[in-house]
Amino acid sequence: MSEKVKVAIVGSTGYGGVELIRLLASHPLAEVTSVISSSSAGTPITEGYPHLIGISEELLDDVDPAGIKAKADVVFLATPAGVAAKLAPGLLQAGLKIIDLSGDFRLKQPAVYEQWYKKPAADEDFLQKAVFGLAEIYGESVKGADFISNPGCYPTATLLGLVPAVKAGLIDPATIIIDAKSGVSGAGRGASLGTHYSELNENFKAYKLNQHQHIPEIEMVLSDAADKPVISTFSTHLVPMTRGIMSTMYASITSDASVSNADFIKLYREFYQGRPFVRVRPEGQLPATKEVWGSNYCDIGFAVDARTGRVTIVSVIDNLVKGAAGQAIQNLNLMMGWDETLGLQFVPVYP
Amino acid sequence: MSEKVKVAIVGSTGYGGVELIRLLASHPLAEVTSVISSSSAGTPITEGYPHLIGISEELLDDVDPAGIKAKADVVFLATPAGVAAKLAPGLLQAGLKIIDLSGDFRLKQPAVYEQWYKKPAADEDFLQKAVFGLAEIYGESVKGADFISNPGCYPTATLLGLVPAVKAGLIDPATIIIDAKSGVSGAGRGASLGTHYSELNENFKAYKLNQHQHIPEIEMVLSDAADKPVISTFSTHLVPMTRGIMSTMYASITSDASVSNADFIKLYREFYQGRPFVRVRPEGQLPATKEVWGSNYCDIGFAVDARTGRVTIVSVIDNLVKGAAGQAIQNLNLMMGWDETLGLQFVPVYP
Amino acid sequence: MSEKVKVAIVGSTGYGGVELIRLLASHPLAEVTSVISSSSAGTPITEGYPHLIGISEELLDDVDPAGIKAKADVVFLATPAGVAAKLAPGLLQAGLKIIDLSGDFRLKQPAVYEQWYKKPAADEDFLQKAVFGLAEIYGESVKGADFISNPGCYPTATLLGLVPAVKAGLIDPATIIIDAKSGVSGAGRGASLGTHYSELNENFKAYKLNQHQHIPEIEMVLSDAADKPVISTFSTHLVPMTRGIMSTMYASITSDASVSNADFIKLYREFYQGRPFVRVRPEGQLPATKEVWGSNYCDIGFAVDARTGRVTIVSVIDNLVKGAAGQAIQNLNLMMGWDETLGLQFVPVYP
Amino acid sequence: MSEKVKVAIVGSTGYGGVELIRLLASHPLAEVTSVISSSSAGTPITEGYPHLIGISEELLDDVDPAGIKAKADVVFLATPAGVAAKLAPGLLQAGLKIIDLSGDFRLKQPAVYEQWYKKPAADEDFLQKAVFGLAEIYGESVKGADFISNPGCYPTATLLGLVPAVKAGLIDPATIIIDAKSGVSGAGRGASLGTHYSELNENFKAYKLNQHQHIPEIEMVLSDAADKPVISTFSTHLVPMTRGIMSTMYASITSDASVSNADFIKLYREFYQGRPFVRVRPEGQLPATKEVWGSNYCDIGFAVDARTGRVTIVSVIDNLVKGAAGQAIQNLNLMMGWDETLGLQFVPVYP
Repeated sequence: MSEKVKVAIVGSTGYGGVELIRLLASHPLAEVTSVISSSSAGTPITEGYPHLIGISEELLDDVDPAGIKAKADVVFLATPAGVAAKLAPGLLQAGLKIIDLSGDFRLKQPAVYEQWYKKPAADEDFLQKAVFGLAEIYGESVKGADFISNPGCYPTATLLGLVPAVKAGLIDPATIIIDAKSGVSGAGRGASLGTHYSELNENFKAYKLNQHQHIPEIEMVLSDAADKPVISTFSTHLVPMTRGIMSTMYASITSDASVSNADFIKLYREFYQGRPFVRVRPEGQLPATKEVWGSNYCDIGFAVDARTGRVTIVSVIDNLVKGAAGQAIQNLNLMMGWDETLGLQFVPVYP
Repeated sequence: MSEKVKVAIVGSTGYGGVELIRLLASHPLAEVTSVISSSSAGTPITEGYPHLIGISEELLDDVDPAGIKAKADVVFLATPAGVAAKLAPGLLQAGLKIIDLSGDFRLKQPAVYEQWYKKPAADEDFLQKAVFGLAEIYGESVKGADFISNPGCYPTATLLGLVPAVKAGLIDPATIIIDAKSGVSGAGRGASLGTHYSELNENFKAYKLNQHQHIPEIEMVLSDAADKPVISTFSTHLVPMTRGIMSTMYASITSDASVSNADFIKLYREFYQGRPFVRVRPEGQLPATKEVWGSNYCDIGFAVDARTGRVTIVSVIDNLVKGAAGQAIQNLNLMMGWDETLGLQFVPVYP
Repeated sequence: MSEKVKVAIVGSTGYGGVELIRLLASHPLAEVTSVISSSSAGTPITEGYPHLIGISEELLDDVDPAGIKAKADVVFLATPAGVAAKLAPGLLQAGLKIIDLSGDFRLKQPAVYEQWYKKPAADEDFLQKAVFGLAEIYGESVKGADFISNPGCYPTATLLGLVPAVKAGLIDPATIIIDAKSGVSGAGRGASLGTHYSELNENFKAYKLNQHQHIPEIEMVLSDAADKPVISTFSTHLVPMTRGIMSTMYASITSDASVSNADFIKLYREFYQGRPFVRVRPEGQLPATKEVWGSNYCDIGFAVDARTGRVTIVSVIDNLVKGAAGQAIQNLNLMMGWDETLGLQFVPVYP
Repeated sequence: MSEKVKVAIVGSTGYGGVELIRLLASHPLAEVTSVISSSSAGTPITEGYPHLIGISEELLDDVDPAGIKAKADVVFLATPAGVAAKLAPGLLQAGLKIIDLSGDFRLKQPAVYEQWYKKPAADEDFLQKAVFGLAEIYGESVKGADFISNPGCYPTATLLGLVPAVKAGLIDPATIIIDAKSGVSGAGRGASLGTHYSELNENFKAYKLNQHQHIPEIEMVLSDAADKPVISTFSTHLVPMTRGIMSTMYASITSDASVSNADFIKLYREFYQGRPFVRVRPEGQLPATKEVWGSNYCDIGFAVDARTGRVTIVSVIDNLVKGAAGQAIQNLNLMMGWDETLGLQFVPVYP
């Protein structure tokens, strides 16, 4: 116990925070020493989350850098947009390592953040300092970093599905169209008409078309992979389920010669060799969201269409695990120089 | 058109109100001439309910007895507890007929209302004036009445399932236990953590055990049927679905002789003869909530158990139709001296 | 009664057949005189569908052209692929009018049918005789026809969303990508692992990418609208809900000048003027599937993206109504020279 | 690795079997060395369960006692009713320890089994040998046993909720009424109309009233707790969700003096002291099924009603974990003399 790394979670009463608590409960080298919520400080976390009775009975702490430093070595920020931008500098100066699950430090240009998030951006120095923690793509930068910006849920599913093909020049990045679907937990725990049970059950909705704040994050990485500016069409839909994201992605195949599903599978398997959380599906098999439910996997499948010269790539994750808390712990593991799977070897819960 | 009865709906932006709009759209002798919402007056109802585009494009009116009287002959009150208590006297004095879908006028003793609803009761004179509109039981009193108090959703399913057996003395009222389950739309449209999609989906909850405000309403009618005071155990649960109520009801059979399912079926078929909205199921068949979905039916089935000397009675309704708007229109039909099925011959939507 | 057109339904025990029964129950000029099922002939339809107790108590008839002719004027065929191909000729020769809800007569080239359906095609003469009943596009041909081939569910949502823009040359048909999502009732009532509750609940799946039999049907109509061959990418997904289809459609805008959402809305409103079942949504509003649930509406919204030069078109229907039984009745109305809305003025059931 | 106990699972392609694989994947002292399915022998388990790709890639073995003995020390039987009755004797004779998850060895009288299961009972000698593994009640008998009969899902939730009060004489066993509700995974993976998505979604059904095969199992243990024969009313319902059971239980309180919720809570906390998987909820709090989802907990809450003199007890479990695979592993731990929580410290997955 005494040797475990001490971890604090700011925003413990949100779904991202409570998922960190669940996953870290079985981490062999880390332990949660402070659960923090500015809105509920002083009350036990079990008041809002009775499923934690007997598991995490702590009183919630308030947000206070010195107090956090006294209790922890690493801080996860699972806070709404705009909060981490204010908190992170003080926490870093207090000597804490940070993994931020919000969007505040993902985009490197303040103007782009402000355009898409409609909020003031974080200090540019800190924007530059934060390493974008898409572990399977930028894992090398994560190792040894002190300040990680954890990717968004949609970008994680989308980019893991697109980057290998874009890097290899197998698809034309200018033709990329991304049709993404998410379970409702991605909207957080705040009650609203938009997340009201009777409005969403037996309903399928599109929202924020062409305006989602994850668009610049996706384009940032695609441009890096293509080594030229990429803009793309990105649509989001709400599925009547709690967890899961599927990105269905379309692009024109560049090659004149016939490229097959097998070619995509081979390319992706090589690209993700040694990365245990990406599972490239065999020929003819497309992943469904439930097949990664509760786990840190991202599963990817392909459907090349000779008629149209396009490929459809299907990528699925659990938005609260690989799309948030799980990937954050994966980044913790990489930061600390540990095996990236520590505490994350959850089998998907099926059915 | 000019001969249709004019109807106003106060509380048009709640689920009960919007269901009245749906059902009345096909009523041959009534037409909605005013949709009223104090909170959204001046805006079109389609703003909150785009499914009504092209069907009901009216601007919402404010609550004003004189204004209502100028537009309508009958008013439906589909308002939260406490509102009808204040509105009804003025509307009656303005010469309007009223059908109140709230609980404000169901209980005849102010003290009982205040105990269970934790709100001031309506004026006792008006409590006495309001006819309790459980159509299949008190239909004769409804005919020609000017002021109807429409029963609650749970009491409707429960009482239609119990009254014939209690009246006939076939079951011992002191042993009645009611285990009721409802879809989430019964909780209304107000957003809260308790109706948040991610909290309710894939979840089954019990709530308000022994404390639900429908308990005195159920006991009032059971006592009337038994001709002696009846108290009973009543539990409510939330089912991850939008519409539907099932009451599973238990009671000891009084008779020493063996009473069979066939005896119950015969009794109930005779009791409900000529009442088209109660369907007594054949031997061995229990109704499911979806089999009445979107319709005004109440379906009832029986399971007599010789081992325990108890009967289990299962009764299902669509909480927004037979449990609210549909029964309210049935009461309108009875008040006006029309056939009770006018505008209500909806086939259940299956699947 | 005696003046009503008599209607028989072959395949009454499938979801399409049972939805025809529901909708026709309130049709003012048509009545169902025979419900037919080769597999369950002689049993009451309520055995499999207890929600029809008191509504449709008929015994199921067997399939027999002479017997059908004795009872009916018009036959709806709601049968699996391959059945109508065999039945239709005999029924036409017996003097019956036919509306076929299956795919057997939609494609006009036998080879194309056989390629996509993996079954022998119908006789080519009859293929040519059958009028493709996409009412808002080919309504004029439907009027007075004796033999209608009712469109598929996905094609209906998709084509109503694309045809006006393609006809007007506003989008480049070569760039069309269709990402479609359907509720599970589209898969019919046959039990299989693929429609097993525990496998689909809290799950989102892609299936039959580039291989769905609705692809040639969509391309047939798009080619007709573009007046040149169109091939397109079409993907299908299963949503954990019972009813509803959304087609999210992407295409490049042809014009150099900036085309706005308002331009699309204006074009579509003009195109569908006088067609009451298509509702073009106002600027900034995208339809959700529940907003047409249980009704014959097709709702369409737009999101033009100046950044990418593409438009995203969102179109929703209830797959069992506008996507099957409702459109079939709309075609009946048109065939008979009646108002196209007869018996179809259902308000969407919300919530 | 070499020191781990080797485990075989017969019936690996059912939901119980696949849940054993999930849970055992993180067990520190046991490892699955053979996954067995007579129907799919020779194929990889990932064919039917792609979520196991990269986790459990084994080919399925056939059922063969000698072969099993060569690979394993302990066998879990997760087979349909009637199979274990035939398999167990041979496996025991081969020297294997057995944990049977089916109902074949729970009832100790062959005639009772045959009456409720409608199948031939197992050999009576073996019925007597099998220890009924309700761990919190009969844990002492489980320790060191070689042959465990794992309780049913409904009995587990029900009995853990009733036994302490019955043993203490706080409730009258003759008045017990149990209204139980289950998610659909309890019905297994076999496709049927009764588990078809479109039939169950947005539906709530009662089934097998007074006839469920878990009734004699519940009465066996209640009779043992009361030390006299107990018969009780037990009803089962299907909830539109995948996992979770709630038993809502009613009984008359025996004491004349007023017994409070606090008295029940105190009694149960003492009774379950040291048993980590039963969580007795604090006053005023009732458990919901999702609060134990994916975990081995059984949570219990109380609502005493002074008006009626009855208590309502609410008990929830995950039917596939505490109601099947989790409790089976708990029994493995007890058999082997290990800490009963080994490999079972899963935090409920919420939301």
